[in-house]
Amino acid sequence: MEFKKLALAAAIIAGLSTQAQAGSELSTLLMLLHENGTITTEQYKRVLAEANATEQKNVAEKQELQAALDEATNVKVSVGKGGLAVKTRDGSFTTKIGGRMQLDSGWYGEDRSGSGSTLGDGTELRRARLYMKGTIYNDWFYKFEYDFANNSSSGTTAKGITDIWLGYNGFDFEGLSVKVGHFRDPFMLQDAVSDNNTQFTERASIDAFTAGRHIGAMASIDRKHWTAALGVFGESASKSGGSDDEGWGTAGRVTWMPINEKGSLIHLGLAADYRSTRSNDVRFKQQPETHVTGVNFVDTGTLTDVDNYLTLGAELAVVQGRFSGQTEYVRVKLDRDTASDPTFDGWYAQAGWFLTNDTRPYSFKGAKFKGVKPKSIVGKGGIGAWEVALRYSTIDLNDGGIVGGEMDNLTLGLNWYPTAGLRVSANYIKMLEMDREGSELDNEEADIMQLRGQWAF
Amino acid sequence: MEFKKLALAAAIIAGLSTQAQAGSELSTLLMLLHENGTITTEQYKRVLAEANATEQKNVAEKQELQAALDEATNVKVSVGKGGLAVKTRDGSFTTKIGGRMQLDSGWYGEDRSGSGSTLGDGTELRRARLYMKGTIYNDWFYKFEYDFANNSSSGTTAKGITDIWLGYNGFDFEGLSVKVGHFRDPFMLQDAVSDNNTQFTERASIDAFTAGRHIGAMASIDRKHWTAALGVFGESASKSGGSDDEGWGTAGRVTWMPINEKGSLIHLGLAADYRSTRSNDVRFKQQPETHVTGVNFVDTGTLTDVDNYLTLGAELAVVQGRFSGQTEYVRVKLDRDTASDPTFDGWYAQAGWFLTNDTRPYSFKGAKFKGVKPKSIVGKGGIGAWEVALRYSTIDLNDGGIVGGEMDNLTLGLNWYPTAGLRVSANYIKMLEMDREGSELDNEEADIMQLRGQWAF
Amino acid sequence: MEFKKLALAAAIIAGLSTQAQAGSELSTLLMLLHENGTITTEQYKRVLAEANATEQKNVAEKQELQAALDEATNVKVSVGKGGLAVKTRDGSFTTKIGGRMQLDSGWYGEDRSGSGSTLGDGTELRRARLYMKGTIYNDWFYKFEYDFANNSSSGTTAKGITDIWLGYNGFDFEGLSVKVGHFRDPFMLQDAVSDNNTQFTERASIDAFTAGRHIGAMASIDRKHWTAALGVFGESASKSGGSDDEGWGTAGRVTWMPINEKGSLIHLGLAADYRSTRSNDVRFKQQPETHVTGVNFVDTGTLTDVDNYLTLGAELAVVQGRFSGQTEYVRVKLDRDTASDPTFDGWYAQAGWFLTNDTRPYSFKGAKFKGVKPKSIVGKGGIGAWEVALRYSTIDLNDGGIVGGEMDNLTLGLNWYPTAGLRVSANYIKMLEMDREGSELDNEEADIMQLRGQWAF
Repeated sequence: MEFKKLALAAAIIAGLSTQAQAGSELSTLLMLLHENGTITTEQYKRVLAEANATEQKNVAEKQELQAALDEATNVKVSVGKGGLAVKTRDGSFTTKIGGRMQLDSGWYGEDRSGSGSTLGDGTELRRARLYMKGTIYNDWFYKFEYDFANNSSSGTTAKGITDIWLGYNGFDFEGLSVKVGHFRDPFMLQDAVSDNNTQFTERASIDAFTAGRHIGAMASIDRKHWTAALGVFGESASKSGGSDDEGWGTAGRVTWMPINEKGSLIHLGLAADYRSTRSNDVRFKQQPETHVTGVNFVDTGTLTDVDNYLTLGAELAVVQGRFSGQTEYVRVKLDRDTASDPTFDGWYAQAGWFLTNDTRPYSFKGAKFKGVKPKSIVGKGGIGAWEVALRYSTIDLNDGGIVGGEMDNLTLGLNWYPTAGLRVSANYIKMLEMDREGSELDNEEADIMQLRGQWAF
Repeated sequence: MEFKKLALAAAIIAGLSTQAQAGSELSTLLMLLHENGTITTEQYKRVLAEANATEQKNVAEKQELQAALDEATNVKVSVGKGGLAVKTRDGSFTTKIGGRMQLDSGWYGEDRSGSGSTLGDGTELRRARLYMKGTIYNDWFYKFEYDFANNSSSGTTAKGITDIWLGYNGFDFEGLSVKVGHFRDPFMLQDAVSDNNTQFTERASIDAFTAGRHIGAMASIDRKHWTAALGVFGESASKSGGSDDEGWGTAGRVTWMPINEKGSLIHLGLAADYRSTRSNDVRFKQQPETHVTGVNFVDTGTLTDVDNYLTLGAELAVVQGRFSGQTEYVRVKLDRDTASDPTFDGWYAQAGWFLTNDTRPYSFKGAKFKGVKPKSIVGKGGIGAWEVALRYSTIDLNDGGIVGGEMDNLTLGLNWYPTAGLRVSANYIKMLEMDREGSELDNEEADIMQLRGQWAF
Repeated sequence: MEFKKLALAAAIIAGLSTQAQAGSELSTLLMLLHENGTITTEQYKRVLAEANATEQKNVAEKQELQAALDEATNVKVSVGKGGLAVKTRDGSFTTKIGGRMQLDSGWYGEDRSGSGSTLGDGTELRRARLYMKGTIYNDWFYKFEYDFANNSSSGTTAKGITDIWLGYNGFDFEGLSVKVGHFRDPFMLQDAVSDNNTQFTERASIDAFTAGRHIGAMASIDRKHWTAALGVFGESASKSGGSDDEGWGTAGRVTWMPINEKGSLIHLGLAADYRSTRSNDVRFKQQPETHVTGVNFVDTGTLTDVDNYLTLGAELAVVQGRFSGQTEYVRVKLDRDTASDPTFDGWYAQAGWFLTNDTRPYSFKGAKFKGVKPKSIVGKGGIGAWEVALRYSTIDLNDGGIVGGEMDNLTLGLNWYPTAGLRVSANYIKMLEMDREGSELDNEEADIMQLRGQWAF
């Protein structure tokens, strides 16, 4: 803490100056001169009195200086990665303002481009978020984040609110916190990991089963070797309100990290998410692990008469030095009143290897991977961190008479992290199999090239 | 002012060090030694010259130090309540960044739920605002605030711009300021009070008559015992532009506070708002003092052929220690060319009582209540401030052949303020009477429970 | 640099205190007293040892103080113009948060108002932007800006993302930088100039030919006497994505400034912009140099079957003390497969004269005019800067069978800059000629009065 250091230093000068000026050597000299009879007792007393008066004045004034210095250094401002962070000396209040920008371009080689363009080459502002977060009186903490990107098909409206919540962690129980607001249900490792920090530009296709964000309340315990989270949720901020009763859900996730050291991790997790629908509708769909095109390769369409559905997931992740790997399996079972109860599922496995001497960081707070901080920094004479990665993913939305499609993809990725916060990613996706009977996308085996520039601050 | 203190302290050390080192006791000693003949005149002069040279050097260098300290402390940063405030030492420039989040949930017990759901239980992000405001060269001040919440029925668009204005108060006349931009017409006490600081989660139903925000210009005088404001306005920022001439209006409000001390207030006010419509349309409507549902219980529908309308209001508020009370009456008279000229009106009376040793703060700047700052703070070992409140409100939109409905509500509220900026409110609303002939809502006497979490920073 | 100054000052006190306290005059006195035999060798050594011990302690402690002061002043915060800027001492990280607000009102005197209102008097929030920009590790720089104003005809949606880009300028080649993101194609002087700093409230009518902003990549060289920029672009952020291949373009601009001193400038420029369309559509349209009304006086309508089009522009600007002038010519040629290949063009010339002793500032970074910083500041006892300006502009969208209209306007402007960042502008526009056969706007010679208040921070 530089604050402490400063206060210490101020205290030190206060002390030392006193000694130096009125005390110590001058006093000694006076005493000696007096003893020697060089100066009279009267003279001795006169100079000593002057010296002591000065000393007292100094002490008082140095205290004032120290108080002023304390005041001046009461708040610390920093600008790491280009964002803005402010905190009080004791950490009881903090504010941070930052954001993320993700700029994509995609090129598509379709099998059946003869039958008309199905995937559009182009560019996209994938995410453009700003956030403000802070701590209030030690125990309260909030976040507000908004996504200004407008890459929906309509193209005119910002994507809207992402995280907006208030939390409290002033409990005696280690690692316990509660929060209310709009945030992700605790479900799936690849959802817990910020899209800033995923190993590929897009999450694996089972992201179709993501619980997403809802208005709700959650309690969680985050410790170094295990975490547990349980929440109840209404609907998403953009769907809340209205004259019908809302849908609701409950979700929980537990993880166990028998090994959790820097550069060495074993992570296991289980999660479940139950949702009761508002209007008995649900839809699962996914683009081919690229977002520029806007075409959903697998898509159940809107399934009606769905009373509720239960999604289950299992996670495994490892890190060993430059190597990292993770795999997840998710299945969802629908409960419909008058129609079949289909089950959809999927899984992926991915591995990455740093070409440079870097590692993939992990945090038990939320049980997730964090952003890479390269050891060698561009702008300070370095070359950044370089990582190659490979992923196989599959999702199956064909069941119970529903033909949503089955898609298997292989993705080869290259990530360059010039500095903390900056990232350039190139992904080549080879569609291995596409089975969606009756669709013009059936048997499509597209080649996809996607490039992303990202800065988070 | 810590800045002043610091500058003072720096000035002090500059002075004291000089005295201590070259002046005072050492000079005295030298003089005495010289007088005693212990040192020769030559020696005396030599040491004195050295001492004086050191002194001069010290003075110069201390001045440099002081200048540097001044520079370093030129701007003060603070993070009260989790927001961010910056100001220059002389206060001529300031910037503040903050916001408000209001998260609601509502449960509805309808009388006639047999006839189909009329009010939907659920959650809502009521407001999600960020603002930036500041002072420029002492006399100019601005604010920009945006509401990112998207709780309209469409649910896809942010609510948009709220306050956006530039003001000037560099006049010689005490309390005078002018501002231009988009802001509320000066009308009604409960509108002047920020929704952060209203005693209940929603304003009383006569909020149907609110003038709201428009693009315009206003002059106001704010003094401790009276205020006056007068403005001319076009339309709201979201309705401005277009190929028709805009509507316009003028509004004024005067208040008198014969008693205005901390914890003791008598406030009286009168206001008038005249509006000439653009397309001769006007509509008055209101939800039953809850916003989650989205259903307007009273609603005139769009009234056509309205040339202009005049709204009048009277206000009374008192504070005495833990007690606060306020009441307002508003009536609006429409001027229509070819149809009847109906008059609508309504009023409310509310009172609150702090269970803890707190009081409801008031500011003559804008003549309004401000946010509660609890004496006992959660996060610093306290329990926050607790307040109970009761309100009766009525609005009558039945007149001149128009059946907009009459609604009488009784609301019981409980407010908990854990810290300044944080608030949890529970409101139970009992609909006493609902008279809207021909509507399925006629005779509805719903029970409404509403819960809000709010953080403003 | 105040940081340097502070470090220097701290270094100085560290040094001086040492000398003052243990060295110099006291040492000399001791030496003399010893030589005189007033004090014994033992006494001399004792006091000298004390003095030296104090000196060493002082040196160590002053170094700690200096380190603490360095730490405390590591980041500099400033609030110029009411915005917020933060930078580290070495400038390797910076963050700035600011915005712009433009508030317009317009009054229209139409020739043919008898035939129904064609232009609507009223108000408009022209722009309401906030931005965040910064530097990351010296060489990287980013900007994110969003326009919250919703003055489109629909009136419910923010205008959206303007600038959002990441740049790198860590090259050895002087003035070279590259950037990727969403930003303006390098084209036209009046487009390069921020709308905060244009001489009139709206750009000249050839703004109909503006390239606008697209997602793309650009390399540029900015030197004092010349600049060059070349970029390739996809579509705008709001149009990107989709299942068709996007349109694309390439644009370049070169400028030469044989004279470029404060208050003295000659600027010449050439630019070209080529665009291949996505869906073979293009449309050129323009309001009569006022935006409140929303009516496009010249408008080709959507032209179909356009394979590509090439826009060319030439620029000239001069500044001499209080005088500034600029003129531009732009022409665009369409390449259509099955229909005529029309050519549209236009030009303007404008000149301004400061009534006060001010000048129009220019920057070779981007080769453009910057914001006026008045010498005499309102709020510091001054009257601001006052400027009168005159512009003639013409645009011709009649060619090849297309009747988009030809419009000639004369504009008289008055600008008042009370402080840097604040501006009030009054524009009177006299429509000299309007030739658009078959349109109700044909032969219209409207009188237009427009007023703008602007604050940028």
